[in-house]
Amino acid sequence: MKIVVDAFGGDNAPEEIVEGVKLALNKIKNLEIILCGNEEMLRNMIVGYESRIEIINADEIIKNEDHPTLAIRQKKNSSLVKAFDALKEREDVIGLVSAGSTGAILAGAIMKIGRIKGISRPALAPILPTKKESDVIIIDSGANVDCKPINLLHFALMGSAYYSIIYNCDNPKVALLNNGSEEGKGNELTKETYSLLKNAPINFIGNKEGGDFMTGEVDVMVADGFAGNALLKGTEGAVMAVMSILKHSIKSHFWSKIGYLFMKKTFKDIKNRVDILSKHAGSPLLGCKKLVVKNHGSCKRNNICSSIEQTVVLNEKKLINKIESALLNLNLEISNED
Amino acid sequence: MKIVVDAFGGDNAPEEIVEGVKLALNKIKNLEIILCGNEEMLRNMIVGYESRIEIINADEIIKNEDHPTLAIRQKKNSSLVKAFDALKEREDVIGLVSAGSTGAILAGAIMKIGRIKGISRPALAPILPTKKESDVIIIDSGANVDCKPINLLHFALMGSAYYSIIYNCDNPKVALLNNGSEEGKGNELTKETYSLLKNAPINFIGNKEGGDFMTGEVDVMVADGFAGNALLKGTEGAVMAVMSILKHSIKSHFWSKIGYLFMKKTFKDIKNRVDILSKHAGSPLLGCKKLVVKNHGSCKRNNICSSIEQTVVLNEKKLINKIESALLNLNLEISNED
Repeated sequence: MKIVVDAFGGDNAPEEIVEGVKLALNKIKNLEIILCGNEEMLRNMIVGYESRIEIINADEIIKNEDHPTLAIRQKKNSSLVKAFDALKEREDVIGLVSAGSTGAILAGAIMKIGRIKGISRPALAPILPTKKESDVIIIDSGANVDCKPINLLHFALMGSAYYSIIYNCDNPKVALLNNGSEEGKGNELTKETYSLLKNAPINFIGNKEGGDFMTGEVDVMVADGFAGNALLKGTEGAVMAVMSILKHSIKSHFWSKIGYLFMKKTFKDIKNRVDILSKHAGSPLLGCKKLVVKNHGSCKRNNICSSIEQTVVLNEKKLINKIESALLNLNLEISNED
Repeated sequence: MKIVVDAFGGDNAPEEIVEGVKLALNKIKNLEIILCGNEEMLRNMIVGYESRIEIINADEIIKNEDHPTLAIRQKKNSSLVKAFDALKEREDVIGLVSAGSTGAILAGAIMKIGRIKGISRPALAPILPTKKESDVIIIDSGANVDCKPINLLHFALMGSAYYSIIYNCDNPKVALLNNGSEEGKGNELTKETYSLLKNAPINFIGNKEGGDFMTGEVDVMVADGFAGNALLKGTEGAVMAVMSILKHSIKSHFWSKIGYLFMKKTFKDIKNRVDILSKHAGSPLLGCKKLVVKNHGSCKRNNICSSIEQTVVLNEKKLINKIESALLNLNLEISNED
């Protein structure tokens, strides 16, 4: 089983990327990795793993400032384009992992790999913790702005298929992000989307507000990429702000420092729960013909390892086939209604 | 100085509303209040304050389920419509405070009081804490969806005027909520809005993401009401989720409970900082010809008292005149450019 990894995407490349690859190789027996990037540098970093890592030389790097489409077209010798070429051309490569520019990954996926038939907009669906035991995903989290209702319907189907695989659950609760919970609330986009979701073959629980995101009531929150991004980033920012206020406050009182010693386990618990944000930093680009998993630019070795493990699971559980058949069911239902 | 209060708006009406009025009367010497609602009930509740409270009888109540515009037109004997009538007809009434339906307050303000010339969409601008000492406002937080760039420009001007009054600061930092910080990022709305804000007579610091909301870098976050609502509610929800995870975790470990005793002051600090959410629950409807301050439906007496105090300050510091002249400056600049 082969996965191709963009060794020069992200703020901590190539060190953290390569170390993440090694962690994954240690964990997964039959895994092999293709690393794309400067061969000379990489050669020195993979000592002891040569038999399971293939290197494809790539001397260019796509940066966040680069125009996504132009970069994919022009930087043919970049680590990301080389990785996409390998994913496209080699049948034994099951997926691609990169922590590079989101725009370039999206552009590369569409231009090099292509979309599942019927899906016009692939979407990102990161995972967040809730205050209960369950997690929640948001789709789309920023790849697509100015969406149409049909795009949001596809996000709902793809998100539901993805969630049901990663959490082994049959009917994830799908909600539409809105500025009010009643039917009829919302902007033009969400009002039209509501009726599409109501009739779709998913467990649609209606409109939910941003405040319901972390309550555990919702498994899959559907939104256009603009509002979804505001919700995702706002939530992450608020969690970090509260932790920062907490830390600052503990440091400024003598008794709190003493108390902290007693509460270490509690804080570790919280840190673990919140760390899911970074542990699951990987998010597949749902709607592509092959698995493309994007990591946060600031990700570390553990995130890369998790993303590789995730790619393996999504491949085993046939995510792409599931999305294709969800879409087929939808089209059948629509044509039956006609 | 007279303020009219809708005694029957909100989940905790009329008790908490009337108690909040009493708190404000105790604090502010030359204040007088007009209470709108069932006279018989209210009469029994204001014993000792009769000389400073006038009651206008109103037997109907506008509910959240009521259609806003229809409710204002048809429920002429409701506490909210009577309050708007008093604000409209009496020159000595400087403002209105209500914890009733947001939609009905917005509709009533537009239909009964009218908008400042040039402003097509009045907006709400609630306050949130940041992880530094400063607070941040978001405008619009949900009153207006499907906005045009000119609406967001007005939000920026009004938000800047409002922030500079309540925090006594000359050049509040105004940012545009976006899904990326670089110029050129965003959806159609924010791309067009960016150039308007860049040339406006405000301290525009560019695009900011949801994650920058609570960092203290931004004073006034400008957004359409849909994305603004997602950010606001998501942030509030995340803060509550973290506090809930914390509480749950403390309860489940023996040593944490001991540690909690040492850390009481720290937790109180945090609670105070987070409570600003509820303390400042009042948000003026910016862009109306007179002061209309909306409270959260679940608000308590302290929130009502704060809102009344806020109305007094906004009146003294001439918020409405400030917005009018900001708009005038803008129009002058635009016509000079022509």
